[in-house]
Parts: sequence; C-alpha cells; structure tokens
Amino acid sequence: MVSRRDVKKVVLAYSGGLDTSIILKWLQTELGAEVVTFTADLGQGEELEPARKKAEMLGIKEIFIEDVREEFCRDFVFPMFRANALYEGTYLLGTSIARPLISKRLVEIAAETGADAIAHGATGKGNDQVRFELSAYALNPDIKIIAPWREWTFKSRTDLLDFAEKNQIPVAKDKRGEAPFSVDANLLHSSSEGKVLEDPAEAPPPYVFQRTIAPEEAPDRATEITIGFAKGDPVSVDGKRLAPHELLAALNDLGRDNGIGRLDLVENRFVGMKSRGIYETPGGTILIAAHRAIESITLDRGAMHLKDDLMPRYAALIYNGFWFSPERLMLQALIDKSQEHVEGEVRLKLYKGNVTVIGRSSPKSLYSDALVTFEDDHGAYDQKDAAGFIRLNALRLRTLAKRDGGI
Amino acid sequence: MVSRRDVKKVVLAYSGGLDTSIILKWLQTELGAEVVTFTADLGQGEELEPARKKAEMLGIKEIFIEDVREEFCRDFVFPMFRANALYEGTYLLGTSIARPLISKRLVEIAAETGADAIAHGATGKGNDQVRFELSAYALNPDIKIIAPWREWTFKSRTDLLDFAEKNQIPVAKDKRGEAPFSVDANLLHSSSEGKVLEDPAEAPPPYVFQRTIAPEEAPDRATEITIGFAKGDPVSVDGKRLAPHELLAALNDLGRDNGIGRLDLVENRFVGMKSRGIYETPGGTILIAAHRAIESITLDRGAMHLKDDLMPRYAALIYNGFWFSPERLMLQALIDKSQEHVEGEVRLKLYKGNVTVIGRSSPKSLYSDALVTFEDDHGAYDQKDAAGFIRLNALRLRTLAKRDGGI
Amino acid sequence: MVSRRDVKKVVLAYSGGLDTSIILKWLQTELGAEVVTFTADLGQGEELEPARKKAEMLGIKEIFIEDVREEFCRDFVFPMFRANALYEGTYLLGTSIARPLISKRLVEIAAETGADAIAHGATGKGNDQVRFELSAYALNPDIKIIAPWREWTFKSRTDLLDFAEKNQIPVAKDKRGEAPFSVDANLLHSSSEGKVLEDPAEAPPPYVFQRTIAPEEAPDRATEITIGFAKGDPVSVDGKRLAPHELLAALNDLGRDNGIGRLDLVENRFVGMKSRGIYETPGGTILIAAHRAIESITLDRGAMHLKDDLMPRYAALIYNGFWFSPERLMLQALIDKSQEHVEGEVRLKLYKGNVTVIGRSSPKSLYSDALVTFEDDHGAYDQKDAAGFIRLNALRLRTLAKRDGGI
Amino acid sequence: MVSRRDVKKVVLAYSGGLDTSIILKWLQTELGAEVVTFTADLGQGEELEPARKKAEMLGIKEIFIEDVREEFCRDFVFPMFRANALYEGTYLLGTSIARPLISKRLVEIAAETGADAIAHGATGKGNDQVRFELSAYALNPDIKIIAPWREWTFKSRTDLLDFAEKNQIPVAKDKRGEAPFSVDANLLHSSSEGKVLEDPAEAPPPYVFQRTIAPEEAPDRATEITIGFAKGDPVSVDGKRLAPHELLAALNDLGRDNGIGRLDLVENRFVGMKSRGIYETPGGTILIAAHRAIESITLDRGAMHLKDDLMPRYAALIYNGFWFSPERLMLQALIDKSQEHVEGEVRLKLYKGNVTVIGRSSPKSLYSDALVTFEDDHGAYDQKDAAGFIRLNALRLRTLAKRDGGI
Repeated sequence: MVSRRDVKKVVLAYSGGLDTSIILKWLQTELGAEVVTFTADLGQGEELEPARKKAEMLGIKEIFIEDVREEFCRDFVFPMFRANALYEGTYLLGTSIARPLISKRLVEIAAETGADAIAHGATGKGNDQVRFELSAYALNPDIKIIAPWREWTFKSRTDLLDFAEKNQIPVAKDKRGEAPFSVDANLLHSSSEGKVLEDPAEAPPPYVFQRTIAPEEAPDRATEITIGFAKGDPVSVDGKRLAPHELLAALNDLGRDNGIGRLDLVENRFVGMKSRGIYETPGGTILIAAHRAIESITLDRGAMHLKDDLMPRYAALIYNGFWFSPERLMLQALIDKSQEHVEGEVRLKLYKGNVTVIGRSSPKSLYSDALVTFEDDHGAYDQKDAAGFIRLNALRLRTLAKRDGGI
Repeated sequence: MVSRRDVKKVVLAYSGGLDTSIILKWLQTELGAEVVTFTADLGQGEELEPARKKAEMLGIKEIFIEDVREEFCRDFVFPMFRANALYEGTYLLGTSIARPLISKRLVEIAAETGADAIAHGATGKGNDQVRFELSAYALNPDIKIIAPWREWTFKSRTDLLDFAEKNQIPVAKDKRGEAPFSVDANLLHSSSEGKVLEDPAEAPPPYVFQRTIAPEEAPDRATEITIGFAKGDPVSVDGKRLAPHELLAALNDLGRDNGIGRLDLVENRFVGMKSRGIYETPGGTILIAAHRAIESITLDRGAMHLKDDLMPRYAALIYNGFWFSPERLMLQALIDKSQEHVEGEVRLKLYKGNVTVIGRSSPKSLYSDALVTFEDDHGAYDQKDAAGFIRLNALRLRTLAKRDGGI
Repeated sequence: MVSRRDVKKVVLAYSGGLDTSIILKWLQTELGAEVVTFTADLGQGEELEPARKKAEMLGIKEIFIEDVREEFCRDFVFPMFRANALYEGTYLLGTSIARPLISKRLVEIAAETGADAIAHGATGKGNDQVRFELSAYALNPDIKIIAPWREWTFKSRTDLLDFAEKNQIPVAKDKRGEAPFSVDANLLHSSSEGKVLEDPAEAPPPYVFQRTIAPEEAPDRATEITIGFAKGDPVSVDGKRLAPHELLAALNDLGRDNGIGRLDLVENRFVGMKSRGIYETPGGTILIAAHRAIESITLDRGAMHLKDDLMPRYAALIYNGFWFSPERLMLQALIDKSQEHVEGEVRLKLYKGNVTVIGRSSPKSLYSDALVTFEDDHGAYDQKDAAGFIRLNALRLRTLAKRDGGI
Repeated sequence: MVSRRDVKKVVLAYSGGLDTSIILKWLQTELGAEVVTFTADLGQGEELEPARKKAEMLGIKEIFIEDVREEFCRDFVFPMFRANALYEGTYLLGTSIARPLISKRLVEIAAETGADAIAHGATGKGNDQVRFELSAYALNPDIKIIAPWREWTFKSRTDLLDFAEKNQIPVAKDKRGEAPFSVDANLLHSSSEGKVLEDPAEAPPPYVFQRTIAPEEAPDRATEITIGFAKGDPVSVDGKRLAPHELLAALNDLGRDNGIGRLDLVENRFVGMKSRGIYETPGGTILIAAHRAIESITLDRGAMHLKDDLMPRYAALIYNGFWFSPERLMLQALIDKSQEHVEGEVRLKLYKGNVTVIGRSSPKSLYSDALVTFEDDHGAYDQKDAAGFIRLNALRLRTLAKRDGGI
C-alpha cells in the first residue's frame, strides 16, 4: 500500500478517459502527489488532443503525448511475429505486446521529470497490471508503482462517479452508466471483455466488434494481395514499400474489409483464472499466415522445428509480462538468428474471413523442384539411400521389438 | 535389395489400382513370391470389391479386404486429436496417421498367413515409405519389407505400362497418360501433390480439390452445429451420439458443404526435402477447433501449456512415422492423462470456409464468473494479493536491473 | 492476515522444537484457536516421543505422531527418482519432496478432526511456505493456512524468547543463542543454510555436515555394492530385498560411510532470490547414479531423450511446490510409462566421495553385442545402410549450403 | 559406392597410423586417386612428424600438418561448455566436438588443393562417420566423401595386413595382433571402446585408462585451485591468464593427477544401437563444475532454466553431428546471449576423483545477502508479499480442487 508520504511525483499512463482522470485526481488528492501524464498514440484510433486539454484542465503541468506507432511495430510487434507467437494456440497477443512499450516510456519519463513513481489504470484481476509492473521493475528496480484499482476504497461505480463529481471531473452522459464491456485497442488489435461477454456459452453480440466487419458482410469477391518480406519482417504490400506501422495499418484495412481476424477465446490469465476475450486482429491475422508461408520455403526444417517447439514458451513469456526478461531476450536472439534469409513474396487471397496462401516465392528458396519431382532427378537424390535411412532409424525400434515381442 | 531367394510370401498393401497391380505382378514374376493382398477401407470413398476381383484375376488366393474405419478413428485419429496435433503449425497429419494402421494389419496378416515379407507402393522420396516401414519394424523386427519403387529398374511410365501389358494387367484408358497429380485419401483427409502442384508460387488449379467445395461456392447462410465431448473425444453432433467414424463422416459432410478444411502447404519431409501438398481435411478442421474450445474451459493452465509445449514434438513423431515408438506412447500417456475431464459441448458456426466457436459449456468447467467478474466477488479473489504476486515475480528482474542498470 | 475470529481449530506441523512450540502457543493465545499437532517421522533421525510429551504439556488434546517413512519413499521419493530429477543440474530435491506429504497429512487430519485451518513453521522468504501451501490448496481449496512467520510481530530472537518464557515454554540452554545455521532433514537428505553459510565465497565449516563423513575420512578401500531394480524402482541391495525406506536407509549408511553425497549450491528460489544451501544426500546420490545406469541398458534412446528433455521442467515443478498439479501428474504418467522394463542390477564402487558404475546387467537389456561389435555381425547391421542414413540426414544441410555458400 | 572414375583427388584425415595408412594406399590403388593428407594436432599427445615421414614415404606430395589446438578450444570446446552440455546426463562430448573441426579443415584443404573428395577412417557403425560427413556436406554440398570402412571388401584383420604387406606399408610388430580396444584422443578427452570393453556388466580393466590416474592412486591431500571466467569462458587458473588450449591443458594436468574425469557409460548412438565407452575428461570435468558454479551466482533464474531445458537438445545435436546446422547456431546464439555477465572466480577442491566447489565470487553476482538473510532486511523483501504470491499461484489449483474434490 502506498501512503501519502511515499510518493512525491508520479507519471500516469493517461488516456484522457473518465477512469484515468479519476485516477489522476486521486493521485493528486489522496496521495498528494504531483502528476505527470503520458498519453501514447499506439494506433488505437483515438484523437489525443482531448487528452491534453483534459490534463491541462486537471492542473497537469507536464504532459507527454507521443506517437509511438512506428516504435511499437518495429521493436515490439514485428520481433514477436518473427516467432509466429500464438498464446494458447490462437491469441495473437495484441494487448500483451503494447504494455512493455508503455512501461518503458513511463519509466523513461519518470527519469526525465524526476518522478519517483509511475501509475497505471489496470485492475487487480487482470494481466495488464503484471505486464506494466514487471516491465517497469525490469527497467528501473527502484521505481515505485501505484495501481489505484488495487488500492483505493471505492466500492462501486457510484462511488467513482461521486468522487468525479466532487472533484469537477466532467462525466459524459453516456459514461454515467457502466459500459457493457471493456475495450483495449492499439494498432495490432482491439480486445473486448467483461460484462455482456462473461458467459462463454453465449456468442458475443454483434455490436462488440469494432475493428472488423462480419465475414457475412464482406465482399463477395476475393481480394488478392502480395506481401514482401526481408529478414523476417514484412516490408511491402502489393509491391509498395511501407514503414512498419504504415504496413500494419494497410493490412488492418484489408483485414477489416474482408471480415478477417475475429477471435472468441477463453484464455488462462497469469493471475490464475480463466477469462473470456473477443479479439480483433485483422492485419496480424494476415501477417502471421504470410510469415509462416515465407518461412515455409526459406527456413530449414531444423530451424523451423526448433522455433515451433519454443514458440508456446515465448508466447507465454509475452503474455505473462516478461518482455524485458533475460529469457525473452535469449529466445529473441535464437529467433532472430533464424530470420536472416527469410525474404521473398507471399500472395494471399482474402475472402470473407479466410486468409489463404496462394503462392510464395523467394530468391532464398530452399524448395527444390529437382529434389522433389516424381521424375528422374539426375542424381540429386538416390532413392536407395532411403532404405538405409529407414533401416538405421528403425534399428532401435527393432531392438525394442525383439525384447518386447512387438508393441 | 531383395533377391529372388530372400522372400517366399509377401503381404501387399493393395488398392486395386494400376500401380499396386503392377507391383503385385512384379512381386510374383521378379521375386517369385506368393502374394497376399490387403485392401483396407479407411474411408477413402472407393468401392473395394473391384480390388477383390482384380486380385483374383491376378491369381491371388489370399485376399484380405477390411473395413477399418472405426479402428482408424478410435485408435489413431482421435488419440491424435486429443493432442491438437499440427505439423509445422498447420498440417492435420491426415496421411501420416493412416500409415501405422495399414502396417499393423500387414504385419498381422503376415503372421496369420505365414508370410515372411510385406510390400507397399510408396516411392523412395516420400514420407510414407518411412511410416510404413518404421511401423512394421516396430511390430515385427524380423519382417522383410519390399518397396518396389526403390528397387525395380523401370525408368519411366512407359516402362511400367509395357510391363503391365506384357503381364495382362488391364490399364484403363484414362490411366495411359500420367495423372496430373497424385492423391491419397482416407476418412480424415485427401492430399494431392506432385506434377501440376510442384511450383509453390502457383495456386493449385480448382480441379485438384475433391473433398470440399470452395468457400465461394458454399451457402450464404451459416450453419450452426454442436459437438459433444467426453474424455477428450467427440461423441455427438447436434445431440446425436455417433460412433467415431460416423461422427467424423458427419463432420466431413458439414465441412465439405461449407468450404472448410483446405490447406496449401510447403512442408519439410523427414527424408530431407521440402514438398508442396494440398490437403483437404473438412471434418478434422472443425474437430480441432471444437476440441481446443472444450479444452479452453475444462483444462487447467498447467495442463494446457504442457500439452502445447509438447505438441510440435508429438506431431513431428507422427509425421516422421514414429507412431509405434516408446516416446509417442509416453507422450500419449501424458496427453491422455489430461483428458479425463475434457467433456461438454461446443457450438460452432460454419460459414464459407470459417469455423467459429460461438459457445462452450461443460459440467466440468473451470471458468468462474465469480472470479473473473469486474464486480465485487465476495472474497473469491483479493486484488491485493496481486501486488505480492507481482513483486515476487519481479524480484529477480529487479536484482538484474540493479546489476545491469536496467535493460 | 488472520484474525482471531477467522480460525477455530488448526492442525500444526509440529516438530517439538522451540520454534514450533512458540507457534503452537501463539496459535492458542493470539488466535484463540484450538490446536491439533502433527509430527511425522520422515526419517529425520529424531525421536518423536518428546514431541508428544511437549504437546501434552502445552495442553494439546489431539496429537498425531506418525511414521510415514515408507509412504514417503514409495509414493514421493521413488517416483521422483524415476525421472532422474535434478534441480539446476545438481540438487536432488530432498527438502522439496517431503513437503507435499506433510501437507497431505495436515489436510487429511484437518478433515478428520474438524479443523478449518493448518499451520506451518516456514518463513516468508523460503520455498517451503510455497510448497506447503500449494499442496494444501490443491487438496482442499477451502482450507485456511496460517504461516505465523509471515504474520506475527516479533522482531527479533529476543522477542521470541520473551514470548516463550512468558508462556512457560521450556527453552533448552543451547537454544538461547541462535543456531549458526538452520537445518532440515528427512530420510532422503539433510540441508543446512543461513547464517554462517550465507557467503557463497566461503567454504562451509566442517561442523555443518551431519549425515556424511568427509571423503578424506572415508575408508581407503572401496566398497562394492549391487542394487537391483524393478519397474524403475530400487528393490534390493546386494541381493537382499528391502522395503523402500529400508533400502534408502541402507544406501544412506553406505553413502555416509564413504563420504558420498555432499553438495554446496547457490540455487534460485521460487520467490525470486538466490540462496546458498549445503545438502547431504548420501543414499540418493548413489541411487541416481544406479538408476541412470540401469536405464542406460534398458531404456530406448527415444524414451531416454524425451525424459532427459523434460527432466528440468519436472524438477522445477517439484522444487516450486507443484507436486499436486496436473502438469506434474501428466509428466509422471509419461515417466512411469517408460519404466516398465527398467529392471536388472547395477554394480557400483563407493570410494571416498565417488560413486562409480562398474557393471550393469538386465534380462531386459537393449544392449547388443552382435550389433555393436567391430567383428562381422552376420547381417544384424549393414554398414552400407549408414551411407544412405547420412545422405538423407545431410540433404537439408546440403540444400542450405547450396543457397548460402556453406556456413 | 565410389568407383574409380568418380574421384580424382582426395584429402584424407591421416593419423600416420596403420589403419589410415592402409586407407591412403587403398585410395591410391583401388580408386586411382591422388591423395592429400591432413594431420591435426588436437592435443591428442602424439608427435606429428612421424605422420609426415610416413606420408612422404607413401608418395604424398601435399601434406598438411597443423596445430589446431587453440581453434579447437576457442571455437568448439568453450562454446559447448557455455551450455554445460552433457549427452545422456553424463557424457562431455569429447569425441563429438572434435569432428566438425577436422571436417572443416578437410573441406577447406580440398578447396585449396583442388581436391573433389575427402576421406576419413571412421567405421560404418559409429557416430564419427555421421559427424564427419554431416559437417562436410554442410560446408560444401558438392564434396564427395569416401568412407573406406563402409566400402572396401576386406573381411578381416588378416586381409588388411595382407594388403599392407603387399603395398609395403610398414606394420609395427605390436600392431600385427589386434588392439584390445580402440582409442580416440584430443585435448578434451580420451575415449576407449570395443573388444575387451564390450560387456557392460564387466568393469574396464585398469590398463584401459590413459589420461588419468585412479582416484585410489591420487594424492592424499586435496589440491585447491581457482578458475577465473569472463563472458562464460575460463580465462585463468590460479590467477594466471592462459590461452584457451593452455588453460585446458593445465586443467587436464590437475584432473589427471587427482584421479578426476573417468566415466564408464552405455550410450545411444545416432545410428541406432547402444555402445559402451570409457571416457577420460580430466580438465573438462573440472571445467563444467566450475562453469555451473560461476553461473549459479551470475545467471538469472529465467536464463538458467531456459538453458537447462534446452541443454539436452543442444548436446544431442553435437553428439549426432549437427554442429554446422542452423538449429545448433540458433541455440548457440541463445546460449551466448546469456553469458555476457558470466564472470568471476570459482574455487575448487580436487581430491581423489572429486571436484568440489568451495567458493564463488563475482563483480556481477546476483546473490544478495540482504535479500536472503534471516535477519530483518530493511525493506528489500516484504514477507507479506509471499502470501499474495502463493495465493495467486494456488488459484488455479484451488479451482481444480473445487471441481475435482481434491486430488
């Protein structure tokens, strides 16, 4: 627990919304701390200037508003996609991957502004508190971290609104009631969870979806696209080179328009409970299919299988908040080592929710017609070698069978 | 190499088609061996009686024709699906999983008929020779195995046809030319590869697909279904209990009609080369989504993550032909141990190539409203515990940061 | 924090020593709880009757004193040794493996006696609190757990002794000062840590060792022994069949007399810090060498390598307190599956700290003279097969080298 | 099989001994190839000038004799020791790690001398043929490889000696009979196998050991040494900085004199059989203990456990000959990433076969007295955090227990 005297100045991850505005005021009034705000453009699709206005109105002197979309894609999203990371077989980690970047800036701004603490608006039941805080501690072991949702004594929505009113925090009419679900968004994805989504036996209501149209509403004609890769990262769409965040934005548009990237998942949180989330990752869903396809012709089997074996562990590290851990960095070194020759082009068909690979080519292709053909391959491969290959692979199994009388 | 004297009697995996008929004759004439034929109904969708006729015509006395669809689903396909097995992230192993069963019957029939050898029609470049032979050796270490494609001296299609003609093997007109690609099929899937499919930069021509309609041709209205599970295996569709092979057949119909289960893949063969395959796994594609969904509410995180971490290795074992190996059996024991409480129902929406989970429920659900809710949970979870949880998880990262000055 | 009203009756893991006696009194006086004591003979080599006397003297009505040595060896130690479990490459987990058994009995006794809580004497910095509590929660999700060392307000040894005096707890003269290090012991091992051992740059003083003599003091002549195995577990020493705990005791004597089983380790605790421990595991050190040796001739490579790959994870689960977790049970199923034919005899030489395998034999041996001999092996192995085996294993590497120009 | 016309010029790994001299002559006479010899000083402890003389006598024009000890230690042995690599739990891979270096030089010399082939003296049953050939193919995909032991038609030792006599190859008297076992040696180890060692139930005769004295014969007083590390590699012994190969030689002397590093092992060969080997790795046995000890205070838990989990796979890659594979290089990148701060000093006691760590210190130590102490730690660690840590770790287990009624 944080007491009044513990904290002098705190950098708050501030969205400009009601909840973080209440937190802001609570930090000022309950803790008596000076507050610095940090608002990041991660591609969530909201204007940030209102956040500045609101912060000024609440008496903030040091206001940081930054466009971090390029850094987000280049240094967080793309390295993660090199690993084909999927948490629990399906989740593209859209929320998880944004948290370390926010923490990094919070800690850096704390250093710049002489703040001794940071604060965030994540609750005490979720993964985000863990991600924010593990990242922050890994970057500054002495930072103080304030998580008001774990600390304050408000018991209900009404308490919060009373506090807002008492402290002249404007409350939009449509925020007086509670939202029917909560949302997180950035350039990679939107997630929705809670309230109307809490029963995993019930399909999500259509109004939950914000970033994609339904497959049923997507065009009746397929869209074909080509994604170019270099060193494992996407660098172009349909021949046009794009900066990382522009490229992801372009894929998001393509995905959205073709009903691609919806996921309805019950997942296991790091804090020990199951939760249900609705995820929309339009561009990311296209990207992972394309990346696997370009790897399929440029990565050796040994490299691919090692990556595949370690992927779930890498994904769990990110999900659990260990982006800035030695083991994530070690796995990243392994993954990056594999991507040197992952280059070329992948053609895909987008159609009503489907992403279908329809062609891949690369100057670094390891696929060999000559080897695989049913025709005579002029010595590239001697079929008789297979007999020896099989017999030695079978030797231990035959030895076992002699002992055990067959399985 | 096999010489005339080595083999007296051989059990041949016989489809009734031209190639295995040539092999049959070659075994008789070149090796001087007595031939026993084994033709299995694995759900490939072909009538088997013509194979009997043809075998009789070729002078075979011992003809085994068997419907193994139930055993195939119950003892091979379903155990594999308990693991959510995907080779190289995407392939449902439809060919791989059928081979061990065929080998098992070949070896058993050899024992019954006093044969000292078995023979198969797989080529020397593919995975199937490995799967057939590793399985056979694991079951009978002294069995002799004849793989005519690796041994005979025919150089071309013409040589083969000449041999057929010389030996009165009837050749259907449409078999005189070469097929534009080769096919393998069973109840789980159809695969197509070779010839017109050899360039991975080119999309497969539409006529390649045999088991599914294109998403574009599927109905404009979604189909909703419910799959019931018990101990990790599917047991019912829309409330109707079905035997394993009936259930898979029902899912195949649903998948086919909704354009579900096509895959275009460049994969790494065990023999060391890359190859390109077109796979159609309509029912299996529905099944794996449903199985993951029922696991999502009934499997504990520790169990699920352990399974996920080991899945690629398990899948590679099956792909490489090690079904009857101690390590596959050990992994199966681990997987089966996890499935005891994997029961309940999953609702899915099938729509133009998409399989979407829209609900899951189980009497054994581990999902807890009370835990996850944003509302007060009356003591089920104390948010303050999270602070300690995070601080101890962060302790080693903070110690590192103190040493290294942050990452 | 526990308050007076929370707990009515508590089962305490009671050693009879000063610390747990203070806890006993604290539970009575501060919490107002009725206390039941549980004292287990885990082979720690102390008489238990004094614990009964002391408990009676402190007013305890329900006193459980039990010899659990056989259960400990049979159901905990031996299953763990089937895995060759070593934490961080070296630690035989002697403390970790005893905690789940104690928790199991605490929870069972709570059910028998109508207690609503259990209590233990582990501190808030160590692993044992985690092991006790995770085990207890896994067996009874509603049990209350009291860890007085995390809760009470004593600040120093003096405070504790004052409390003891005030409550008529007898304090032996030699306990008035603080022990120079703390000890845990059971049939598998003794561990010593803390105080004089806290500097990892300094060798432990000789008086720390309690279960083994120094190698220097061991006999100048080697002792040869033979250990017999069945289904992966040791069953005899020098031909004499022994119950599990008798067998381990016999190996302990042999190890102690030959200076075997000392370990000086800096390890990583689950709670996030490094600690230094001195471990003595005389019999276990002999046993793991013998078990690996019998496995070396009876386990297939595939089985052995799978076990080896998973062993560190299995060991970490036990170290971290997850004995009663689904993932440990799944791994145990995998391990146990492998041990069916692990039987035979291993001869070992014990000499001044060394355990040297000098022979292994088994009716289930997979070692084959005929295969391995440099002599002509009459067809068991065709050396020419190796050429094909190597060429197909090399194929992907050659394809890579063609692309990349060699490594 | 290689025929006369296939090969024009071949680089032979030549020891100067009888067997490789016979191979040399066989290449000249049977294949009609020009032979280049390569003899490497890997620290095997034999003079190399006799090999030059003998090669000259056999008519060789291009003779390469090289001291590769430093490269061997720096680029092969030390990177491997960073991983604490042990094959099947115990084998330090002394033979395995030398083969890739030899192959690398063979391939390089082939390029320099215009040779189209290389040849080695490994048999068709062992691992070394695989290691030589996989390495060579990975470095030059078009190289031809001749393994005379797999190809020639000599049936017995007598045939070989007859061939030697006929070709004026001098045969030392003591080589007329067969050696009682075969030996491989380099700076890291000596291995002995075959013949008198083939029964794993029998202890090796004392005359087998060549690099170490028996523990029984070692001094009665312990020797204490200090090894210094930087970036994961040993750099000094007792304060004296040494080049890699000098350092390993110094440790070898210390190990030999104290009876350290003997191993009697039944292992699983890549070619599918079990074999028994006697290994002597005096310096390496000291080194791995020291490396683990310096890691124990400088590596974070996350890094260490990831390394430990992957070590068996890394070791198997080296054992199986995949040193020059993408997956080994990826794992090496991961391992090397972890070693940046692995520096400091380790003190060890060497005594009659025992290597005992008695102290470790490092400017980069992560061990913290303040954290671990039983005393009040002034806020570094709040014991109450442990309660939350445990409760959240237990949450999923409690949820399971509620469903399943406890385990």
